[in-house]
Amino acid sequence: MGKYTLGLDFGTLSVRALLLDVETGEEICCAESEYAHGVMERELPDGTPLGFEWALQHPQDYMESMVQSVHTVLRESAVSPQQVLGIGVDFTSCTMLPVLDDGTPLCCLKEYESRAHAYVKLWKHHAAQYCADRLNELAEKTKQPFLKRYGGKISCEWMVPKAMQIAQEDPGIYAAAGRLIEAGDWVVWQLCGKESRSACQAGYKALWNDREGFPSEEFFTALHPLLSDLTRKKLGARHDPIGTKAGGLSAGMAARLGLCEATPVATAIIDAHASVASCGIADSGKMLMIMGTSTCHMMLSEQEVMVPGICGVVRGGILPGFYGYEAGQSCVGDHFSWFLKNCLPEHCVRQAQQQGIGLHELMRRRLAGKKPGQTGLLALDWWNGVRSPLMNFDLSGVMMGMTLATQPEDMYMALLEATAYGTRSIIDAFEKGGVPVRELYAAGGIAAKDPLMMQIYADVTGCTIRLSGSSQSGARGAAILALGAAGPAAAGYSSLLDAVSALGRLSGVQYIPKPENTAVYEQLYALYSRMQSLLGEEHSYLMKTLRALRTQ
Amino acid sequence: MGKYTLGLDFGTLSVRALLLDVETGEEICCAESEYAHGVMERELPDGTPLGFEWALQHPQDYMESMVQSVHTVLRESAVSPQQVLGIGVDFTSCTMLPVLDDGTPLCCLKEYESRAHAYVKLWKHHAAQYCADRLNELAEKTKQPFLKRYGGKISCEWMVPKAMQIAQEDPGIYAAAGRLIEAGDWVVWQLCGKESRSACQAGYKALWNDREGFPSEEFFTALHPLLSDLTRKKLGARHDPIGTKAGGLSAGMAARLGLCEATPVATAIIDAHASVASCGIADSGKMLMIMGTSTCHMMLSEQEVMVPGICGVVRGGILPGFYGYEAGQSCVGDHFSWFLKNCLPEHCVRQAQQQGIGLHELMRRRLAGKKPGQTGLLALDWWNGVRSPLMNFDLSGVMMGMTLATQPEDMYMALLEATAYGTRSIIDAFEKGGVPVRELYAAGGIAAKDPLMMQIYADVTGCTIRLSGSSQSGARGAAILALGAAGPAAAGYSSLLDAVSALGRLSGVQYIPKPENTAVYEQLYALYSRMQSLLGEEHSYLMKTLRALRTQ
Repeated sequence: MGKYTLGLDFGTLSVRALLLDVETGEEICCAESEYAHGVMERELPDGTPLGFEWALQHPQDYMESMVQSVHTVLRESAVSPQQVLGIGVDFTSCTMLPVLDDGTPLCCLKEYESRAHAYVKLWKHHAAQYCADRLNELAEKTKQPFLKRYGGKISCEWMVPKAMQIAQEDPGIYAAAGRLIEAGDWVVWQLCGKESRSACQAGYKALWNDREGFPSEEFFTALHPLLSDLTRKKLGARHDPIGTKAGGLSAGMAARLGLCEATPVATAIIDAHASVASCGIADSGKMLMIMGTSTCHMMLSEQEVMVPGICGVVRGGILPGFYGYEAGQSCVGDHFSWFLKNCLPEHCVRQAQQQGIGLHELMRRRLAGKKPGQTGLLALDWWNGVRSPLMNFDLSGVMMGMTLATQPEDMYMALLEATAYGTRSIIDAFEKGGVPVRELYAAGGIAAKDPLMMQIYADVTGCTIRLSGSSQSGARGAAILALGAAGPAAAGYSSLLDAVSALGRLSGVQYIPKPENTAVYEQLYALYSRMQSLLGEEHSYLMKTLRALRTQ
Repeated sequence: MGKYTLGLDFGTLSVRALLLDVETGEEICCAESEYAHGVMERELPDGTPLGFEWALQHPQDYMESMVQSVHTVLRESAVSPQQVLGIGVDFTSCTMLPVLDDGTPLCCLKEYESRAHAYVKLWKHHAAQYCADRLNELAEKTKQPFLKRYGGKISCEWMVPKAMQIAQEDPGIYAAAGRLIEAGDWVVWQLCGKESRSACQAGYKALWNDREGFPSEEFFTALHPLLSDLTRKKLGARHDPIGTKAGGLSAGMAARLGLCEATPVATAIIDAHASVASCGIADSGKMLMIMGTSTCHMMLSEQEVMVPGICGVVRGGILPGFYGYEAGQSCVGDHFSWFLKNCLPEHCVRQAQQQGIGLHELMRRRLAGKKPGQTGLLALDWWNGVRSPLMNFDLSGVMMGMTLATQPEDMYMALLEATAYGTRSIIDAFEKGGVPVRELYAAGGIAAKDPLMMQIYADVTGCTIRLSGSSQSGARGAAILALGAAGPAAAGYSSLLDAVSALGRLSGVQYIPKPENTAVYEQLYALYSRMQSLLGEEHSYLMKTLRALRTQ
């Protein structure tokens, strides 16, 4: 009788449930279920309009989609509940919500259903930028030690700016919230019937550190008077490293999911971070890029070093026993989708239809034979601001070098290249910070589907790139990490790291840098770097002013 | 019995003949006739292929189209030949051709009809860029005084680079050419039967100046040995200011056109420059913008000042008694055409079709209600390099401020605004140079057709803009200037300037700056200026390198 773990991967639009065979590493069955409300960007379910740059979700969707996807995998795989050794959860982050002390989301209470701040703020909710600005200003002024762990800047996507936005804009909701909690931790709470918090989310997104804890109450009070109780009451008291057991499946949830009561549930992990285990990375010096709408860069290291511009370093935040480093690019696949939707002329769309191919493939065909530098274009990949290394969300996209001969595919290529330069500048930041990057790995939709882009990344970085072997690297990683809760011995491994090494998968595809391309990209990257300094640092007020005028 | 003048406006694709009533200013009749060979960009009439960026014409077309259009206006207007007081010619420039000493175009001789260099090089023939590069390099090295009259850079569109290309690539043609002549001067020669040269073309396009003459023979010899006889033999000895009589209509041409022998013919003028008279501008401080695929800026002044970045200053080059200043933007309408062709997504094209409107109109409708600054975008209008004020054709287009919310119409608007900032930076250069700009006037296709753009120009410059009253501003201007040859008294005016003031026409439409828009554009223009300095001056090597890598 086989042994399995269940990975639950909560993405932006859907949840995926994956059953993994812990002996063979085979992905037995995977099912996806979309959230009924999707992403709410314009209005609440009752029609209440939302402001500029809001992005909300409904927590009920998580539960319903999870139940549906778990039912599907159990039914289709014919795996019995007893064969499931453990459950792992990975989630987008910081995706947070206000709940009562018993875990009930405020938005599920009649009295709050028309209050926007009662809902889940999705990771890409950007309306708390002014709170992040205030936070960064105060932290810098008061020389907060946490700043250097996050590259000197706190993102508006993170927990404290989002909490502050609630306190500032709807104090009643803030007061009613017994807890402010990551959706991943909340789902684990719902599964086990008791609150549990992950060091991963707290460390990467809520300014928490295993040695120093949260920033001081004094600091939060100075930031906003209502935040004086933020860490004492609302953000949880204990934060467990990845690989810890959060609890056992409650009787109620076991019945609802069709699983056994007390099945071990692992502490939640951020979706991108779960992919490290999925690729079998259990060692330092290997950078994993999870490439989708945005890109996350993950690194393990035995040492804690303060790298300027990274998004965070957390002990046990990716795998137990390592410092886990995270960096990120805000806009990768999003660039290309934006371009194809908003900039691709009719004659190209017609050409794709005639050839019976997709638009991305059309662009690749039109670019066939084009050499690096031949477009004459250079772009800065800042359509969604800049996470690493500049940490500045006032920045915005740039394209330069256009002439009357510039073709649509040239601009598409410039966007591909721009994201590669962005990754290279992150690698540079790690190396300068004393965390050497020896190997590159890639996971996510783009890595699997876009050979042109992957070759550009190899040429721009000068590194061979190996690909993840799973198309479900989040869910696979979560499933592997569930063995930390189940106890690796039950699955036949001496340690969780051993299980990661054994159950991680690469595809065998490699992208190897071409020297003639690398030579040209070396020169283009120098131009990118100069532009990055000019517009992102020395004269960053230019884009800041542009943005201010836009919303004036 | 009425009195009339005849204006002949030779454009890129056709000639227009216009009969103007010199007492009422009424445009009695206008007829257009297209050139049989149009613009030859790929091959000669016999199929001989042309190189990259060539643009030729056939001089016979000018004569045949002229005869046809003059016949039409005489027939349709029923004006008798005796009533025509004078003939004025305006022409694109520098549009030049090699001819024998008697004026016969080399391309009309059997032996040269397959030699590309025997034909007319149209203003937009760009294959002499390498000659312009060499010219600029040498002029800078040898500190030629003429450079500062042209803003420090000579365009590849002008006379000397085109002459040098002939000498370099087909020395036989160069040697056979008794004269190298502007097509406008050549047409006047054909009309009068004797050679005459205009100070306008020589001054703006052939490095000639009324005090200093041409650059030295030594300079031209150093540029290319064959050019040692360029000014001595080929470019004409005398250059008359605008308003001078070039001669009387020859018996042969009078018969061919159906006009009276000895009808006074005025010295030729560049097409854009003729529009100044057409608008009734006979005073300093008034800038005329001729807005089409590119924009020319014309100014009169009593003083000769060296304004950095202008395209030329010529005494009597626009009207007698004034220094005529010209500046220019290389890419205006061309921007928008490029954008609509290469960047407008399918759904917009479909929307325009559904609404039964053109693409420009669709953009305007989608922008209705959008306020300055709301796009969040800023562009540098450098898709075709920069004429004034930077005179740098290594520069290329830039757009910045893009986010995932950026819409096609936002980018279109950013291009409109960019060209307005470009004009404002030219006005600034004039003002800084000591030539104050007090009023703005506009002529050309865009001025008449695009109210959104004209309002943006008013808001960005802070100047009221008055529009030309004639849709034939070239032909009308040439007709008015013909009175300089006829003698204004014959038409009832005390001077040519009086005639210009009386016969110039504005449409009555005015675009008045809106203070609330001007306030925002003041801030946006400050950003444009800073970007202009950053990428166009302080760090211009960035785009220079990009361009070099493109052609590597």
